[in-house]
Amino acid sequence: MTMNGAECLLKTLIANGVRVCFMNPGTSEMQFVSALDRVAGMRGVLCLFEGVCAGAADGYSRMTGTPAATLLHLGPGLANGLANFHNARKARSGVVNIVGDHATHHSSYDAPLTADVEAFARTVSGWVQTVSSAAEMGVATAAAVAAARLPPGQVATLIVPADFSWNPAGATGDVRQRQARSVVDCDRLTEAARILRAGQQAGLLLSGSALTDRGLAAAARIEASTGARVFANRYAARLPSGGGRFAPKRVPYFPEQAEAMLAGLEHIVLVETQPPVSFFGYPQRRSTMAPEECRFHVLANIEEDGEAAVEALAELCGTAAAPAREEPRKHPALPRGAELTADTLGAAVAALLPDDAIVSDEMVSCGEVVSAHLRSAARHDHLPVTGGSIGQGLPVALGAAIACPGRKVVALEADGSGMYTLQALWTMARERLDVMTVIFANRRYRILDIEMERTGAGAVGPRANEMLDIGRPDLDWVKLAEAQGVEARRAATADEFIAAFEDGMRQTGPRLIEAVLK
Amino acid sequence: MTMNGAECLLKTLIANGVRVCFMNPGTSEMQFVSALDRVAGMRGVLCLFEGVCAGAADGYSRMTGTPAATLLHLGPGLANGLANFHNARKARSGVVNIVGDHATHHSSYDAPLTADVEAFARTVSGWVQTVSSAAEMGVATAAAVAAARLPPGQVATLIVPADFSWNPAGATGDVRQRQARSVVDCDRLTEAARILRAGQQAGLLLSGSALTDRGLAAAARIEASTGARVFANRYAARLPSGGGRFAPKRVPYFPEQAEAMLAGLEHIVLVETQPPVSFFGYPQRRSTMAPEECRFHVLANIEEDGEAAVEALAELCGTAAAPAREEPRKHPALPRGAELTADTLGAAVAALLPDDAIVSDEMVSCGEVVSAHLRSAARHDHLPVTGGSIGQGLPVALGAAIACPGRKVVALEADGSGMYTLQALWTMARERLDVMTVIFANRRYRILDIEMERTGAGAVGPRANEMLDIGRPDLDWVKLAEAQGVEARRAATADEFIAAFEDGMRQTGPRLIEAVLK
Repeated sequence: MTMNGAECLLKTLIANGVRVCFMNPGTSEMQFVSALDRVAGMRGVLCLFEGVCAGAADGYSRMTGTPAATLLHLGPGLANGLANFHNARKARSGVVNIVGDHATHHSSYDAPLTADVEAFARTVSGWVQTVSSAAEMGVATAAAVAAARLPPGQVATLIVPADFSWNPAGATGDVRQRQARSVVDCDRLTEAARILRAGQQAGLLLSGSALTDRGLAAAARIEASTGARVFANRYAARLPSGGGRFAPKRVPYFPEQAEAMLAGLEHIVLVETQPPVSFFGYPQRRSTMAPEECRFHVLANIEEDGEAAVEALAELCGTAAAPAREEPRKHPALPRGAELTADTLGAAVAALLPDDAIVSDEMVSCGEVVSAHLRSAARHDHLPVTGGSIGQGLPVALGAAIACPGRKVVALEADGSGMYTLQALWTMARERLDVMTVIFANRRYRILDIEMERTGAGAVGPRANEMLDIGRPDLDWVKLAEAQGVEARRAATADEFIAAFEDGMRQTGPRLIEAVLK
Repeated sequence: MTMNGAECLLKTLIANGVRVCFMNPGTSEMQFVSALDRVAGMRGVLCLFEGVCAGAADGYSRMTGTPAATLLHLGPGLANGLANFHNARKARSGVVNIVGDHATHHSSYDAPLTADVEAFARTVSGWVQTVSSAAEMGVATAAAVAAARLPPGQVATLIVPADFSWNPAGATGDVRQRQARSVVDCDRLTEAARILRAGQQAGLLLSGSALTDRGLAAAARIEASTGARVFANRYAARLPSGGGRFAPKRVPYFPEQAEAMLAGLEHIVLVETQPPVSFFGYPQRRSTMAPEECRFHVLANIEEDGEAAVEALAELCGTAAAPAREEPRKHPALPRGAELTADTLGAAVAALLPDDAIVSDEMVSCGEVVSAHLRSAARHDHLPVTGGSIGQGLPVALGAAIACPGRKVVALEADGSGMYTLQALWTMARERLDVMTVIFANRRYRILDIEMERTGAGAVGPRANEMLDIGRPDLDWVKLAEAQGVEARRAATADEFIAAFEDGMRQTGPRLIEAVLK
């Protein structure tokens, strides 16, 4: 029997290593859904909103280094995924984003769902292609997988008219050659080593694939032997942390703090990152955060092998004999009897986090305080905000949990941001994922209190206040979670939080704590 | 004191009749938020997700014929609104969509939130402009309002770099001339009248501004005098219904049913609509639904005055003496003692709907059955699906309630679609809006069972079934509502539903019923 286009698509994905598909299909994607029963090897994960699909694929890619697929319904279904695809793009996550479209014979009729799917796709995708025939399905799908994997990784959108799914297909496609990260050339290595050893004030700023155990160990040796300060891009996709690992300094969100951290630097060597810039622009402030006279030196571009470059750099810096510096592991104390604040919550999480956990971080205004505690926690992978589009944290946690069964995932989530993609909780329940969600319930878009002042807009008046206050009425996160099948508790003191979090760490499965902050 | 750009923007909106702004602001929009306390006359309505803002603006425009504003945060904030802006576009709703962007001095630095805002905007907007300086803020804002109001109405997106909000502005802007709908020319009227009176099988298909009390009354006279059959575009923004009003036939969703309704027609006169086409394309089916030999005659284009055209047509058809046909008002019976099905639910709503209610309809698979009952309900405005992007119903109800205080709004909402923009419930609670939400809880993307078959994908296998089933775990809509401050009840029998719905109709304020369907 001839296979149809949808079967060919699915087989090509599977044959090329794409084994999970986060989806919210509609009529145009029914052939793909139907093919799940005839083609073995794809895990279909239903999400109740496309923003969850997109963020989950991002989280999956960050943890595995390989792309997941998403399956979305026409232009509007894709539209709902764009904000988290924006975050995935900034995380340089590979995603094979499959979007069904109207059958070609139907596309000229301006039916209700007709829209320019490619235009939606181009806003966030590094690669966009509309399949041109059922016969080409295999080739086009393989091209999409190859594009998603192209270093450093990108969203590759393949648009599939419905008739090409139900028509007889040609052969499946093959990704012939997997493009590897390119090797950093010798001149740049030599130059970077020269700068770091020259005795001037120098920094090494890491991002992307350099932020691995090996990359960090090499960076620690460089710091020990040259005195250069090592920094991490705050918005990197993934940062191995805790457990006594070497901890590069994360460049802060606010420019004044970042400038203080970077003060005095004459040179910064860049690994898979641009120079540090402010998150927002403000009146009478420049956007760059390093000293104005600081010079930048690119060691590795974003598509190059930053990890190998940092290791080679460590060799060149003559660190063979230098002892790797390890941060001492202090077992953090539990803040018993305390009020529940970002500070005590952070201390409790740091004390109780099990080994090898994954932390999805969308804490927004509580981030600095909690992250400082997490440096002394057990070893974990930290998945921070990358693109700043809120609603990232829960979907990324979901995707990480699918990617890494057996590892505890902790989602540290602001209440305002959490409301954007709260449907992720349902999929966590359905798939019985081992995710502990902590909602930082401060009942406010708290960060905007600060930003209001910073942008020169002055004090918050009563009408402005209404636009920052999400506490009238209060959101009940226990009910929001239970409504979607996730067991939940509320904690209003540090002791209540400790008890609930300890419980959650002892058991597996999805749970949520609404942490009502003082 | 000089006003800044944000104050100028706000004053220009208000001076030109834009008095409500649905918003989810961020740092780049703080000046606008701050200005709400200094410039009187704008109602700011906070929504916890941008899809809610966009849909609410759509609902507001459908009920008032004038645009509301939306205020969104950079490319990703806009991205979250696109799906409901797609629906607004198909509804031809006017919306002044204000999107903050990075300060111009910051835009070249590729900060995390940097994206091509215009590219996002163009996918759904009829008009897009980035403000070029603070001095031009008034002129640009007035141009956006004029564009949003241009018949038949469109999404006009004004992108505002943050520095132009805090810098000193020029004068406020004025919409000098409000563009009216153009008048239909005599030749087309004469031709339409000739066709309808020629004794052939003829139809009159209405949409847009022709679907008013006056337009419908004129259509009823035309039907009575000429025998022409009168139809309504199923996806029109608003249909006055019930209360004995003349009820045009709504062209069904499925092409077989639509073809049966349109069978035999030799001519169709089009008023603000294209010929009827199928929602989706299917294998071996054509996309058009009128008979192949049917000829189409445009009476009014979408930007023309369809209401006046239909009234003029009624005169030309010589209907002065013809009695207007009125549908008899049958008071529907309450289905006491019955199981709760789409049919009994529809009968109960039709029996209990108060006069002058507004019905936001996103019932999806239950739509045909319930709508049939609603024809015999008290007079109401029916706001159907327009663009097919799910997640429309609750936000449109919210916007309609803001637009029409004193009128009961009933949102008839599928469970799968409702999950897309459930955050609308919170704003209904905060604003104490008189909205009764009925969730049709069938625990399934039911429509896809049918579409699976129709697209030739065959029977639903167990793995495919997982992608259509949203009942593992069941969503608890009572908790989802209560969590957001909306009083809620569950109904599992017709009697329980009747009691809950009657209660809701007697009181004002937001309420929700989870109708668990058999």
